[in-house]
This record gives sequence, C-alpha cells and structure tokens, in this order.
Amino acid sequence: MQGKLSSSMCKESDNSFGEESLKLHEELGGLLEVCGKISLDSIEALSVAYTPGVAEPCLKIAENELDAYKYTLKKNSVAVITDGSAVLGLGNIGAQAALPVMGGKALIFKEFADIDAFPICIDTNDVEEIISTIRHISPTFGGINLEDISAPRCFEIEERLRKELPIPVFHDDQHGTAVVTIAGLLNSLKIVNKSFEEIKVVISGAGAAGMAITKKLLHIGVRSGNLFVCDRNGIIFKGRAEGMNPEKEEMAHITNSGNIKGSLADALVNADVFIGVSAPGLVTLDMVSSMSEDAIIFAMANPVPEIMPYDAKKAGAKIVATGRSDCPNQINNCLGFPGIFRGALDVRASDITLEMEMAAIYALADMVEESELDVNYIVPNPLDKRVVKAVSSAVAKAAVEAGVSRI
Amino acid sequence: MQGKLSSSMCKESDNSFGEESLKLHEELGGLLEVCGKISLDSIEALSVAYTPGVAEPCLKIAENELDAYKYTLKKNSVAVITDGSAVLGLGNIGAQAALPVMGGKALIFKEFADIDAFPICIDTNDVEEIISTIRHISPTFGGINLEDISAPRCFEIEERLRKELPIPVFHDDQHGTAVVTIAGLLNSLKIVNKSFEEIKVVISGAGAAGMAITKKLLHIGVRSGNLFVCDRNGIIFKGRAEGMNPEKEEMAHITNSGNIKGSLADALVNADVFIGVSAPGLVTLDMVSSMSEDAIIFAMANPVPEIMPYDAKKAGAKIVATGRSDCPNQINNCLGFPGIFRGALDVRASDITLEMEMAAIYALADMVEESELDVNYIVPNPLDKRVVKAVSSAVAKAAVEAGVSRI
Repeated sequence: MQGKLSSSMCKESDNSFGEESLKLHEELGGLLEVCGKISLDSIEALSVAYTPGVAEPCLKIAENELDAYKYTLKKNSVAVITDGSAVLGLGNIGAQAALPVMGGKALIFKEFADIDAFPICIDTNDVEEIISTIRHISPTFGGINLEDISAPRCFEIEERLRKELPIPVFHDDQHGTAVVTIAGLLNSLKIVNKSFEEIKVVISGAGAAGMAITKKLLHIGVRSGNLFVCDRNGIIFKGRAEGMNPEKEEMAHITNSGNIKGSLADALVNADVFIGVSAPGLVTLDMVSSMSEDAIIFAMANPVPEIMPYDAKKAGAKIVATGRSDCPNQINNCLGFPGIFRGALDVRASDITLEMEMAAIYALADMVEESELDVNYIVPNPLDKRVVKAVSSAVAKAAVEAGVSRI
Repeated sequence: MQGKLSSSMCKESDNSFGEESLKLHEELGGLLEVCGKISLDSIEALSVAYTPGVAEPCLKIAENELDAYKYTLKKNSVAVITDGSAVLGLGNIGAQAALPVMGGKALIFKEFADIDAFPICIDTNDVEEIISTIRHISPTFGGINLEDISAPRCFEIEERLRKELPIPVFHDDQHGTAVVTIAGLLNSLKIVNKSFEEIKVVISGAGAAGMAITKKLLHIGVRSGNLFVCDRNGIIFKGRAEGMNPEKEEMAHITNSGNIKGSLADALVNADVFIGVSAPGLVTLDMVSSMSEDAIIFAMANPVPEIMPYDAKKAGAKIVATGRSDCPNQINNCLGFPGIFRGALDVRASDITLEMEMAAIYALADMVEESELDVNYIVPNPLDKRVVKAVSSAVAKAAVEAGVSRI
C-alpha cells in the first residue's frame, strides 16, 4: 500500500514549505536549467552541432516538417504556458510572478516523464493575443500544456488552439484534474459498492476544473438528473439569471435535468459524492452529515480544502480526498499530465482526445489493486514511478486507435 | 598560440559534417534537454518545488518584478529566436526547419557561458506579429538573442523590441558578427601597422551584418570617405535608384562621403580591407591584386566564402579570415555572444548598449597578446575558455558605466 499517509497529519493548514521553497529558489536561481546532450570540446564537435553540419537536419525538416520529431527536441518538448491569471490559490498575479509555478511544473514533467518542458509566461490576458502568441511559438514544441489561465477565457483558448495546431493542446487545470479526480472516484465507488449510474454528485466550482469533471462524469455514466454544479450563487439551473456565462449555460443544460434550484447545502442533501474545486471552507459538518451513507468527499481547493479531512470524517464521510500532500488520498495532477503527455509524445500525437483521457483514467485507477483499495488509498502515491508507464502506454494505445498518432 | 590552424586544410569546401550532424541529431533527438536542479524524490521535495511552497517566490515577484532574477531561471535565461527567414546559407526555410540551428546556438550558450538558452522558432514573417509574440513571451527570459531574421525586417524588430522590453534584445547576426569582425580587424591592423583612421574599407553585403559592421567601423574611427558598402548593384551612394531601402539610404548617408559610384571591383582598387558578409565567390583574384599593399581580406560568407583563403593569399593578400572552422582566423560569432550575454545577465542589464559592444571588441582583441599576433592568429580560438570570462567582465563593467545594470 504505497504512499498511504496517516490522516492524523492532516488537521490544519501548514505553510512551512513556503520559506524552504523561497530559500531553494534563491540558492539555485530557479530549479530548471537547459543542458546540452553533447560537449563542444573540439572544432569538429562545433562543426557538427552547429554550422556547417547543422544545415543537413534543417534541410530534411524543410522537406518534411514531421522530421522535426526525428531530429530535434520537438520530439520530447512541452511548453508549460500561463498568462498568470489564475495561479494556484493566488489568483491573477501576472505573468512574471507565475514563473516559479511554471518552472515547478516543468520540473515535474522532467522528473516524472523525462519530458523537456519549458515555462512560458505570457504577458497579456487578451484571448486573441494569447492564442496568436502560442500559435506562433508552437514549432519548437511537441505539445502545449496550458496552466493557470482563468475561466472562462481558458475554454476558448484551448478550444481554438486545439483546432488550429497540429500538436496536443491540453489545459491541465481542466482535463488533468478531471482525469485524476475521476480515477479516484472510480476506485472510491468500488469501496462503497456504488455505480456511476446511481450516484448523486455535487460539484462545487464552475470554473475550468468543474467544467471538465462535469463532462467526463456524464461520459462515464453519471445521470444528468443526478449531477449538480454549484457556484457562489448556488445550484446552476436553466434560466438562472445571476452570474451566468456561456460555459455555465452549457452546464445548466447538460446537468440538473430536473432543474432543481437551491444552495450548495440544499444540493448536498442525500448526495453520494461531493467534488470541490472551489474555495476553502465552503462545506460545513452539517452539510456532510446531510449526505447519504458512505459519503465521498473530494475537497480539492488548494492549499486549504472546502472542508478539512478530519472534520469531514467526524461528520460521517466514508472517504475523503484533498489536493494536499500531507493528507491521504492526494488528488494530485502529477498523477495525470506526465503520463498523458508522455503517451502523446511517444506516438507524435496531433491531439489529446477524450478517448485518450478516458484511457488515462482507467489506467490510473487500475494502479491500485483491488486488494490494496482502502478508504485512505484510492489513488497511487504521486511518487509512484509505475504510474507514468501505465498511463502513457494506455494513452499511446488510445491515440493510435483514435487515429491521432503520427508514427 | 592556441588554436592556430594550418591554412593547408582550407582549399576547398568541405561538407562532411552534414552527415555526421544528421546522425547525431537523430540519435539524440536534438542536442538539448531541460534538466532539473533538484530531484523530486519525496512528497516534501514536491511540496517545496511545487505547490504549496512555490507560492512564496511567486508572491515575492508579484511584489517586485525584479525578484524574478533572484528566484527563477530568468536570472540566467536567453531565448534564441528566429522566424526562419535567413537561416545560415539556406535562406527562408521556415520556422520549423530552423529549429536545429537555434538548438545548436542554445547549446553553444550553455557550453561556453553556462547560460540556459532555449530555442523559439516563430511561425510568421510578419514584423508586427513577431514583435508582439516576443514581447508577450519575454517574462521568462533575461535576454533575447534574435537570430537569422532577414534584413531589413530584422532592423525594425530589434529596434522596437529594444525600446519596449526591459531586457537586452540583441540581433547576433548584426552586432555579434560586428564585434568579432572588428576585434579581428583591430588585431590585423596591428600586424600591418595601419590605423582605422587611414584605411580604406570595402564591405560587401548591405544586410544585417553589413549594417552593424559599418556603424561600428565609423564609431571606431574609419572615415566616411574611406568606407564603401556594396550590394549586388555595386557601391551604395546617395541618390542611387536601384535596390534601395531605408537602411541602405542610411548607409548612403553615413558612408561614401565622396559619393563614388561603381562596382565592387571598382571599390576594391587600393582598398586596405575587404569585409565580405555576402555570397560565395564574389571576389576574384584580380580584385584582390588591385588592393593596396598588405591587403586584409575577411571573406565571411558561409559556408563558402567570397574568395577561398588559398586564392586570396595567391593574389597577394597579407591576412585572410573567414567564417570557416577549417581555416585559420575563424571569425566565429561564438567568440562574441556568449560573453556579451554572460556579462549582461551578470548585472541584470536592461539593454546591450554600443558601449558594451565596444568593450567586448577590445576585450576580445586583447585576448591575443602582441607577441602571439600572426597573420594566421588574429582572434582567439573559438574553444578558448578564457574568452567568455574576459568579454563578460568587460561587458558587465561597461553596463554598469552605461547605467543599464540593475544590481
């Protein structure tokens, strides 16, 4: 039962990592570097790596653009791109200040999946400018990981770039979060012996992650009448006036088919599952108590969850997951994106499709054997090196089947 | 006399590096990778490098943008950027095909100056789009190295970005080439005992490099009446009708004050110095013979020079330099840009000024001691590791004096 943590660690917020992070970033001058794979220790090496020799791979690629995968880092490179508008729990801190987060993400790409990821912080929040900037720098990369871009702009940016570019464009806050969440939920349902078809699910948060989780839950079998998305105005329903946008209109149409109105507390009565991708402390003990038996709580607001695990358990929840590394059941995106991109790059995929994401969900869930399943062990430990291998081969296979592979 | 090569190697064009380069690029999948400076081998390491710890450096930078130099790779990073419009001797091969050259250049940055350079190939030739793309991705970088962008667009792109961005923007084909060329010329003049103030100089090529060399030669003392720039229409003069553009108009006004007309051959009669940044084979043996005594030939067209060294010597040239690694006196940009950017980054420079470039010229020339100076040893060997140290400290000092340092 790798990586199972005691829930006793997990009673309050802990910010001790901040000072250490600051010290480390200063000491090392950032955590990333660009390295050469060869040494330029002779005039001959210089002539092979650079002019005149380098003209040959250039000419090959000029003949056939796909040869960039054969001769350059495009084969293995991902841009980690943000505009700094929705960084972790920090909000719109701007492009420059987002650089440490993008650097950390790139480091995870390298460490977990041996992918050469590079942080790109874009100094504008304008949708058209972001799209054109990413389009223009895309030749260097085999994939684009969008990160920490605020909703609803993130939806249009991803959608348009996916259509325009011949490489995968993947907004990790949407799809990566959804993949890991649903893998965890899939395993949780095994423990409580319920099925996607019968459960009532309440999602708190109608942003990037909430939207992606909603769509994948419907795809995997949750019924529209049993699925409720709440924002700060309560349950989203058809015809609601306050705080709507095109994406919430879409949610109103694909969820809540009974058109129920009410608050988050109303929604949670008799719910089997709560999924929080919203804000600290929104869920009370009473709300948890009002849920059905064997309630499942995924309280994933970062760094402070919608309800602390200790409280949720006290109120009767059977399984609790968070985004925190110091609590059991960490729903951590690094269980998803490294393997998803590794699989996509391995087959030179032109896109990351829903089928590839579903393959990642099942592969990830399967990493926890039935015999290991436990209320405190529903997803693998983020450090479990087997995860990337399993997820990437499932994703690569799905890419080939979906016809987006180019090898 | 480090790195002195026998001129006997240098009789004909040699393309044997191409096949080896192709093989190496394929075998390694490009020559660059992105590496982590720490290992993510524990949940604690993950919490320090990424969420929640990474919020701390983000907040510091949000308070003070310059702290990005303290906590991130901006401190040491350079983007090597092209639009693929003027790649080596290959011309406009496009962004994707230019990637191996930008990768090679990034490798040189790392190897020579320990700079984390990353290749960015921009998929448009439109000046406004290039400028806005580079502006938008600039937060990641401590400097921008523009590369292989065709004239005259390169002038406007560099000029506008230098004004707009708070980091150095340096078009290496212009200024890097000029720095190394003029350092070599400075040492050549010591050998033939002539001064900048008295020599007649003919430049072949009115593109990026020709323009930058022209301006620096005037700055260092060459007289306008003794300086001639030729393009395919011959000498550039005020009032010429054919093949002009705003940059050539400028050259017509700052050079050739006698407003002489004629061909390249006409210009070369009694010239002391020929500087070729143009095309293979433009200079004949007769032209060299028509030059003054102790003629100096810098035939830097790549990979095949304006005249081969063997021929130039046969026709009476005293000193011959080329861009080739298999000939003596290689005027190689890697003698310049690594140290120039190293010096700029070391003091968080906001710009690379003319004073910094002049400091690089003198530092580079001084690397060859008077006692070592020889017709076949006018510039240091490109592999001479002392070069970066000498150039970077001279450049950093000049940056402080010019008021563009931010430490």
